[in-house]
Amino acid sequence: MPDASDPRLADYTGLRDVELRKSLEAEHGLFIAEGEKVIRRAVAAGYPVRSVLLTRRWLGSLADVLDGLGDRVHVVDDDVMEEIAGFPVHRGALASMERRELPSVGDLLHGALRGERTAGTPADPGRILILEDLVDHGNVGAIFRCAAALGIDAVVLSPRCADPLYRRSVKVSMGAVFSVPYARMADWYGGLAEIRAAGYRLLALTPASHATPLNRLDLRSACALMLGTEGDGLSSRWLHEADEAVRIGMDPRATARGVDSLNVVAAASIACYELAARDW
Amino acid sequence: MPDASDPRLADYTGLRDVELRKSLEAEHGLFIAEGEKVIRRAVAAGYPVRSVLLTRRWLGSLADVLDGLGDRVHVVDDDVMEEIAGFPVHRGALASMERRELPSVGDLLHGALRGERTAGTPADPGRILILEDLVDHGNVGAIFRCAAALGIDAVVLSPRCADPLYRRSVKVSMGAVFSVPYARMADWYGGLAEIRAAGYRLLALTPASHATPLNRLDLRSACALMLGTEGDGLSSRWLHEADEAVRIGMDPRATARGVDSLNVVAAASIACYELAARDW
Ligand SMILES: C[S@@+](CC[C@H](N)C(=O)[O-])C[C@H]1O[C@@H](n2cnc3c(N)ncnc32)[C@H](O)[C@@H]1O
Ligand SMILES: C[S@@+](CC[C@H](N)C(=O)[O-])C[C@H]1O[C@@H](n2cnc3c(N)ncnc32)[C@H](O)[C@@H]1O
Repeated sequence: MPDASDPRLADYTGLRDVELRKSLEAEHGLFIAEGEKVIRRAVAAGYPVRSVLLTRRWLGSLADVLDGLGDRVHVVDDDVMEEIAGFPVHRGALASMERRELPSVGDLLHGALRGERTAGTPADPGRILILEDLVDHGNVGAIFRCAAALGIDAVVLSPRCADPLYRRSVKVSMGAVFSVPYARMADWYGGLAEIRAAGYRLLALTPASHATPLNRLDLRSACALMLGTEGDGLSSRWLHEADEAVRIGMDPRATARGVDSLNVVAAASIACYELAARDW
Repeated sequence: MPDASDPRLADYTGLRDVELRKSLEAEHGLFIAEGEKVIRRAVAAGYPVRSVLLTRRWLGSLADVLDGLGDRVHVVDDDVMEEIAGFPVHRGALASMERRELPSVGDLLHGALRGERTAGTPADPGRILILEDLVDHGNVGAIFRCAAALGIDAVVLSPRCADPLYRRSVKVSMGAVFSVPYARMADWYGGLAEIRAAGYRLLALTPASHATPLNRLDLRSACALMLGTEGDGLSSRWLHEADEAVRIGMDPRATARGVDSLNVVAAASIACYELAARDW
């Protein structure tokens, strides 16, 4: 049995340390899937397995996944697992997976998306989300889950938006980061213009009072819902670039209750719901 | 300056350890507010301050709050703060606050609520949330923020639902746990009957396909939205007790994308939005 210092286990070191992981995962082009369900979804989505680290009792249920991995399956005791990861791994199995090259935004919108379904028809217009600089991995994951549940076709990330394949994003998304296509913009300043040119109406979600209430919009054309960062919201550049500023109406008593906006997951959920087909 | 072993700092020990905190906070009837904004909101809501632990640079901005606390203000260095709390406290100020006795569910619904506003009128019927056994403190906090933003009058917790005053709930709620009135049911089995008797229609939110779609409900009467736990959802007892099972329609493609429900914050947000006044 390998011990915590074994170099073959380097992919799994210090899972709790966000900064360490960010550089390790970027440098080696890997990400970590945690627990049987998520590992299976990543494999089903076509991500190649680099190696698996697990405790003995998971050998049986993951047998088919492990098949063919040979000496890249590492069986350890619970305490070694905890020593490596830096916390108790309740789901007893971790897989190091290879990232794949992301599509360009252009390919995402024209190729994958339009090819896969008949977007742009009046009954089922294209619907995408654009996330600007979200910081919290849990929020990114929750938004992907919501996108999968409510029929969003694709997600576009700003250059600095948090990574959907970071362990916490993957976990919170329930694996939806593997099934909802996404791309990362190369250019923050000019990135929105390309999306508009692809036929999407750019709707900037903001709590600002001058914005149009979401429930008064005509949402029958292809729409891109833009969501801003947890602290400051959308940048003024992006607010300016949008076709329309849109707000989710809030209770006038909210301010007295100390709340001046929804959290970004709540706002995304409501906006996706408002965009969703009424007959589901 | 006190050091980490000073018994006067016991309220702040091991903030990262959920189990330790749960017993400490229950036993001593305290909770922790973190950062200037949240501390101020807790004070404004009338929670008495037991003591404050902060670094020197926060003395100025919190001067008015500290006034009159005398030797219950503890100034320490960053590293002592980190040693006590168990992690780097970015917001540099922690306050230990006294809990207050919660109202009974009956008082919450009849007294506080009905007294404070004209609930039960057709234009503005009463709206409450009932949370069954939520485990995640972040989810509880996010739901309170959403409740404050979208005009929910009060929240009722099942006996085992996670604590809204736990540090993470407070933080994620942006302090809405101080402004949205809530109570905890004494009796899980019979608790819903009392709410129905107070005039609320009990709507059980569930992704089950036999449930009525949310957007086809007539929501003009006083409603209680019931939300279930992150893993298994509402208990069968509560589903059975409800007046109606209600679902948020999901994309038929969601299952193929690996998603069979919304997360509970997303579901709460959408349901509160659907209940909200249309002219905000
Ligand atoms: C926590 S909010 C940011 C708040 C920031 N102070 C602002 O004014 O935008 C994060 C994101 O959620 C969305 N959001 C929050 N509340 C909203 C509302 N009432 N209407 C529309 N979007 C909202 C926006 O996209 C926002 O950028
Ligand atoms: C993660 S879900 C629980 C899923 C669980 N498997 C079930 O069937 O209820 C947590 C809670 O969110 C709410 N919820 C999630 N998706 C929903 C939907 N599509 N419609 C209505 N409520 C939903 C329900 O109250 C549920 O108890």
